[in-house]
Amino acid sequence: MKNEPLKIAIAGLGTVGCGVLNLLSDNGGLISKRTSRDIKVVAVSSRDKNKDRGVDLSGITWCDDAVDLTKIDEVDVIVELIGGSEGKAKELVEAAINSGKSVVSANKALFATHGYNLAKLAEDNEVSLLWEAAVAGGIPIIKTLKEGFCANEVQKVTGILNGTCNYILTRMEESGDSFDVALKAAQDLGYAEADPTFDIGGMDAGHKISLLSAIAFGEISSIDKMKVDGIGDITDKDIGFASELGYVIRLLGNSQMCDDGQVSGGVEPCLVLKNSPFASVHGADNAIMITANPVGDSMSIGQGAGAGATASAVMADVIDIAKNTAIQPTFGIPIGEIKQKQWRDCGQDVSKFYLNLSVKDTSGVVLEISLILKEHGISISSLLQHGRNVDEKVSLIITTHETTRAAVEKACRAFDKLDVVLEKTKRLRIF
Amino acid sequence: MKNEPLKIAIAGLGTVGCGVLNLLSDNGGLISKRTSRDIKVVAVSSRDKNKDRGVDLSGITWCDDAVDLTKIDEVDVIVELIGGSEGKAKELVEAAINSGKSVVSANKALFATHGYNLAKLAEDNEVSLLWEAAVAGGIPIIKTLKEGFCANEVQKVTGILNGTCNYILTRMEESGDSFDVALKAAQDLGYAEADPTFDIGGMDAGHKISLLSAIAFGEISSIDKMKVDGIGDITDKDIGFASELGYVIRLLGNSQMCDDGQVSGGVEPCLVLKNSPFASVHGADNAIMITANPVGDSMSIGQGAGAGATASAVMADVIDIAKNTAIQPTFGIPIGEIKQKQWRDCGQDVSKFYLNLSVKDTSGVVLEISLILKEHGISISSLLQHGRNVDEKVSLIITTHETTRAAVEKACRAFDKLDVVLEKTKRLRIF
Repeated sequence: MKNEPLKIAIAGLGTVGCGVLNLLSDNGGLISKRTSRDIKVVAVSSRDKNKDRGVDLSGITWCDDAVDLTKIDEVDVIVELIGGSEGKAKELVEAAINSGKSVVSANKALFATHGYNLAKLAEDNEVSLLWEAAVAGGIPIIKTLKEGFCANEVQKVTGILNGTCNYILTRMEESGDSFDVALKAAQDLGYAEADPTFDIGGMDAGHKISLLSAIAFGEISSIDKMKVDGIGDITDKDIGFASELGYVIRLLGNSQMCDDGQVSGGVEPCLVLKNSPFASVHGADNAIMITANPVGDSMSIGQGAGAGATASAVMADVIDIAKNTAIQPTFGIPIGEIKQKQWRDCGQDVSKFYLNLSVKDTSGVVLEISLILKEHGISISSLLQHGRNVDEKVSLIITTHETTRAAVEKACRAFDKLDVVLEKTKRLRIF
Repeated sequence: MKNEPLKIAIAGLGTVGCGVLNLLSDNGGLISKRTSRDIKVVAVSSRDKNKDRGVDLSGITWCDDAVDLTKIDEVDVIVELIGGSEGKAKELVEAAINSGKSVVSANKALFATHGYNLAKLAEDNEVSLLWEAAVAGGIPIIKTLKEGFCANEVQKVTGILNGTCNYILTRMEESGDSFDVALKAAQDLGYAEADPTFDIGGMDAGHKISLLSAIAFGEISSIDKMKVDGIGDITDKDIGFASELGYVIRLLGNSQMCDDGQVSGGVEPCLVLKNSPFASVHGADNAIMITANPVGDSMSIGQGAGAGATASAVMADVIDIAKNTAIQPTFGIPIGEIKQKQWRDCGQDVSKFYLNLSVKDTSGVVLEISLILKEHGISISSLLQHGRNVDEKVSLIITTHETTRAAVEKACRAFDKLDVVLEKTKRLRIF
């Protein structure tokens, strides 16, 4: 017995919007059998009505203004694929919820910035607000955290969350390319935007780890205070030094519940051991490791972006709404249980670090450096001077035993004041 | 606002049953917040009432006969952790469904054998029948296939589905141990039963791939006709030869939709390339790769068994019932849409193969072998004779290009009739 069709409206007909239309055209029959319900696109909105998108829009209502989609009575669900944390996307999502329609969105910036208020609005209006597609489209990690691991106390979330950065880093690793050459290749392949700042600078991964963290720990922390470092400063030399020491470099988002009850984490390029599961994640893939009690470590790898993977995630949410009458909380826990807090000061992070010092190749340098490290209570694990270049610049690579990030920062500032240190000292976390 | 508590009864207080009680005792408050509903164990059943299990059963009704749990009116959900495809487990699940109670079970043998009939019974009685814990407890793969990838057409499912076998194979690989020594170690660590036949022989993995296949393709195929080979014949020499050729050996379950509309697959030890993601799965972990359109390849790795991971999966199902009023089909698609079919004859499988021949080290051997391969249309990729031992036994290792399994079987039967072939020729699929 078939139920009434679920009627959806799609705002934004870019790559993902057209991906959803194509998915429904290819797999609509299969979805309908599985769901015992047809899913029907009844309205769309996008910038240019006359653009040829290669999709059939006949019989579908067109709205020039996306917010008008919420005024169509028969629409059950608004699919927001406009993007951006402010402006039309926010206006649309709020209008949809206020008009009693459920919302499915792929908009990580919107949720990372306004997630708490939107979740509250959805709960007050008793509608679903789902966003599987906002994080790692090819990995159903939101459902896994909210439902599959619902009985678990999550301890840690770690992930390769930006495919563009992973493509660049693994390309540099495999081909020896410089950062600029690898970035250009990523742009040519469509993995990186013409202006790649948001990906390369780490903010895209920052939004994602903040969203995963909110579900994992029931705490929404403003991204303003999060530590976010991108990969723009990583050179082929760093990748070579890391390799020599048994590591690769990956941009990791991480978030964990500390013993003091605070959540620490952020986004930064890290050295990870070559036999770590993260080291085997290549190209534009994403990977997420959840550590939780009692399930232990669980890792998922899949496409992070692209029309197909993202459309798959959008449709999974739409189908959930089609099948379930119960409203699930946006962040996996009722809004009244969510705490709004700050990330713990990252200076308190305890980790091993990699230091890359540009020094003048002269006697006594190692002694000066060692004294500063000792002064800050930092213990050396390995030290490597590359080449010999008397009285000229050489690289001194140091890895430390576990210490605080604050101590490392202070030591680096002290190094940078020395005459023998010729450039700003680079430090990377060893994860 | 809290809803009425969900009341559950647990049948079977072994490792997993006690794991569920411990999980509720540890994380019950958290689950209750996330679910807006308390989950309460009101009755249990097990073999020996007086056994000290280290769990608090005060205030919980005890039934000597598990079926009596279904007669307790207030019980909403029966959790079946007895195990086995026949007898009490089957009787209990049927009685529960017939009395209108939902069922959560970790019993892969029961579902692999009677899944179709039980799913039909559940649908007729409008109750939920959930079994996340039956396959890879630490990986929410049933939910991922049924819900996360609901919009996808699945093409292929491949997995390391038995932790015992993976522990043994990776231990042999890492330490050079013989099969017997590795099995003994697995038994000492509690990874293998005293009678390990069900794991080692591949049947446990066979049940699991048949269940995953049923969801992936909407076809339930009897396990009687499935190709199921275990790891009992794998020697440390095979692992050494495989390594020399760039491979490791893993017990893989696989299932795919063929171009002719039939589902092929089974369970067998396979050679996989050292840079394959399956090669990096060590110890008792499980791993599952789904290939689907449009999501692409997606892989998950986690604990396959153990009290914690299995209890986590059991509770995820219980929570789903607590949160949702809608009944979801047992295999992700209404029973009327499920086809009952046979696995395609495995002789039609097309693959590369590894052949290990024990031959007499005499001139003309390679010629005789080559002639037989040519006769069966099999093309050689590599050939390796190990050592020199004139007129005595040596190993001749051959890898083939792609061919059918039927051709390989015929060729091996022809080898085994030759005077110079001293033992039954071993053949393994290269995946």
